[in-house]
Amino acid sequence: MTETSLLLTDLYELNMMQAYQRAGMTETAVFEFFVRRLPSNRNFLVAAGLEQVVDFLQDARFTQAEVDWLAAHQGFSAEFLDSLLALRFTGDVDAMPEGTIFFADEPILRVTAPLPEAQLFETRIINLLHFQTVVASKASRMALAAGDIQLSDFGLRRAHGAEAGLLAARASYLSGFAGSATVLAAQRFGVPVSGTMAHSFVQAHESEALAFVHFAESRREGVVLLIDTYDTEAAARKVVALAPRLTQQGLKLKGVRLDSGDLAEHARRVRAILDIGGLEQVQIFASGGLDEWALQRFVAEAAPIDACGIGTSLSTSQDVPALDCAYKLQEYAGQAKRKRSEGKATWPGRKQVYRRYDSNGVMTGDTLTLEGDTVVGEPLLQPAMRAGKSLETAPSLADSRAHATAERQRLPVRLRDLKPAEPYVAEVSHALRSLTAKVDHDQRASAES
Amino acid sequence: MTETSLLLTDLYELNMMQAYQRAGMTETAVFEFFVRRLPSNRNFLVAAGLEQVVDFLQDARFTQAEVDWLAAHQGFSAEFLDSLLALRFTGDVDAMPEGTIFFADEPILRVTAPLPEAQLFETRIINLLHFQTVVASKASRMALAAGDIQLSDFGLRRAHGAEAGLLAARASYLSGFAGSATVLAAQRFGVPVSGTMAHSFVQAHESEALAFVHFAESRREGVVLLIDTYDTEAAARKVVALAPRLTQQGLKLKGVRLDSGDLAEHARRVRAILDIGGLEQVQIFASGGLDEWALQRFVAEAAPIDACGIGTSLSTSQDVPALDCAYKLQEYAGQAKRKRSEGKATWPGRKQVYRRYDSNGVMTGDTLTLEGDTVVGEPLLQPAMRAGKSLETAPSLADSRAHATAERQRLPVRLRDLKPAEPYVAEVSHALRSLTAKVDHDQRASAES
Repeated sequence: MTETSLLLTDLYELNMMQAYQRAGMTETAVFEFFVRRLPSNRNFLVAAGLEQVVDFLQDARFTQAEVDWLAAHQGFSAEFLDSLLALRFTGDVDAMPEGTIFFADEPILRVTAPLPEAQLFETRIINLLHFQTVVASKASRMALAAGDIQLSDFGLRRAHGAEAGLLAARASYLSGFAGSATVLAAQRFGVPVSGTMAHSFVQAHESEALAFVHFAESRREGVVLLIDTYDTEAAARKVVALAPRLTQQGLKLKGVRLDSGDLAEHARRVRAILDIGGLEQVQIFASGGLDEWALQRFVAEAAPIDACGIGTSLSTSQDVPALDCAYKLQEYAGQAKRKRSEGKATWPGRKQVYRRYDSNGVMTGDTLTLEGDTVVGEPLLQPAMRAGKSLETAPSLADSRAHATAERQRLPVRLRDLKPAEPYVAEVSHALRSLTAKVDHDQRASAES
Repeated sequence: MTETSLLLTDLYELNMMQAYQRAGMTETAVFEFFVRRLPSNRNFLVAAGLEQVVDFLQDARFTQAEVDWLAAHQGFSAEFLDSLLALRFTGDVDAMPEGTIFFADEPILRVTAPLPEAQLFETRIINLLHFQTVVASKASRMALAAGDIQLSDFGLRRAHGAEAGLLAARASYLSGFAGSATVLAAQRFGVPVSGTMAHSFVQAHESEALAFVHFAESRREGVVLLIDTYDTEAAARKVVALAPRLTQQGLKLKGVRLDSGDLAEHARRVRAILDIGGLEQVQIFASGGLDEWALQRFVAEAAPIDACGIGTSLSTSQDVPALDCAYKLQEYAGQAKRKRSEGKATWPGRKQVYRRYDSNGVMTGDTLTLEGDTVVGEPLLQPAMRAGKSLETAPSLADSRAHATAERQRLPVRLRDLKPAEPYVAEVSHALRSLTAKVDHDQRASAES
């Protein structure tokens, strides 16, 4: 996370918070974050972003400067502004561990806190959970499609700003990518970082061969040369010709990168040139507008591509840049609550998701029910914060990445397909349906007056 | 901008920079940023993000901690790492002013600087220019479709991270939005901020009417009540019933908000209820999954909607979350350069775009040519930085917003359509074509050896 100002919120959160405090409505509220429906081209989603939410909630503070700015510009009461300076998140968070696969209507995060707190943090909680979940879900499709091809995130430049680039590196690593080109992701999150060269490097030189030599002499190890600036196969032959000289200098050529044209076809030709030239160990990297469908084609064609850099389609989740998600009040002061707006109705109460598996460990079905209901299966929401503090049991990014890998292995075969599959069975329990009917009845009787 | 670490870059920029320094390649380079092709559902694009690029370049510094981290992790030479501490951007920037309309292949920003500097900043320059251009272009379509309906950005929660939310508020304001719900956008950029209430506020109360009273008593002015939590028309009648009491308390009801169902139809019914109730001055706000097509329908149906909140479709530019853009080397050490990769060839040299208008001030055609070429029309790229410093003539956001409004008025009628129109005429000059042929000839002769 790079932005910590609590002014990064919708004005209405502050408006509501002041009204709640003024009316003395500070009892415990329960909000849940969930996705209303899966996009047609996603057979499952992957929960991500919890660590950033926990860090945000734990560190959330209004500064004096922020409160002074609000006092000067937004017409809040002095009493409310004073309360902001003392504000700390004191609530509980339960959530699916990062990397967990989930489906429509299943809460992946639940906040239990005094109503003004639980409301105020809505905007940033959604902002953090939504984006990483979008990218982790996209990256997971790529990981499934790529087979043995290693994947690396090249998406910073077209990500939507700094934080998106940084968190896309994290979320894609979580979902099985080998690393990222983004240096800051290595520093902040320990994501393995790697990099090659740009066309400009070749163009700036008087000759392509000189560019290759200069780059190798400077980088020395893990050298990857970009060979498509002018003529891909001609450049591959130059690499073969230069190889003895580089070896003599102790420089280690790792691979060549292709970034344009028919990548599978170029890879076959380049592989042949390299192999005949004795460079069997030199890998072929491909990049340039790749997505999960391109990866699937490479695998189907057995293209001799060892690794791919994935940019825009990953970091913007280009086909599904947003999910229909919500953070909704499900209980206040011990009473279950429900929104009934047309097309946007929600399931009330504090909920839990139970998942069942077959004897091979493959997921067979989920049940959405009330917390405390007795249902067969593994409960997916786990404690993540208590009384405003994160738990010592919080997983590392490496732990979460291992969990995500295990989750992909638990996916039913049909859901691994890139194409829309018959939906996974996620049922709603009798207990939850009964509560819903009761809430509707009670609300009709009184709450709408 | 919220992220200033220079580690927010692709590793290859640092790899290339070290190689350039090692090889003594520090002469002047010219890079240009442009969009290769317009998406099929964009008839024009709007340049945005220049102010953030200029601020970034002017303030760019490596910290000792960043250099120490690189020293410990990434295998760079001591000499190179020392040079990073002293690094400042010393170059020139020429660019289209923010708000300017542009088309494929037209550079909107040119960097002229020593090669290592111009290369290093590539990633973040693209990251900043691309995203705001994406959003400003989307917002401009919305502004054209909305007629007299006021637009407000509600997109922070589903924007891709903090910076995206903040810069989407800026870019949409630039392109004609009236304001944003994002408080930080008001503090950082002076974007007008406004807000209503959420469904949770209504749900948390024992009755909808009590929620309305509590909110109005707290907010006092500019009160906008959300009326679709249970039954929209019933809630509108409650607003009418409450109005005398609110007025008596000196509270100012500004409007009601609809967020679900058939918004145009609900707006007609609610307008009738409010008007009969004597609340003709109370405005109707609409939100909930809106985009430019929905705005066009509201206008076509003359729906009585005064203002709309636009979220996800704006802040993620949902139909076009990314543009095919590039930042390419066009000249080094006085020699024009050109990338010839398949499907990604570029026009070489330092370029300028000239635009012509008819007697009514409507754009009639552009010419892409070399800087210094004599072409009829207005040159669109203007100085933005000299020797690493921003210029005193830099426009304010208000200036840029006025320029963007004027630009929309200069658009040919057919390009204002949301549907794909016959493309605008942007021709390539004879001088540029000649240079391209010469560069190709020279490169074939020598550079590819």
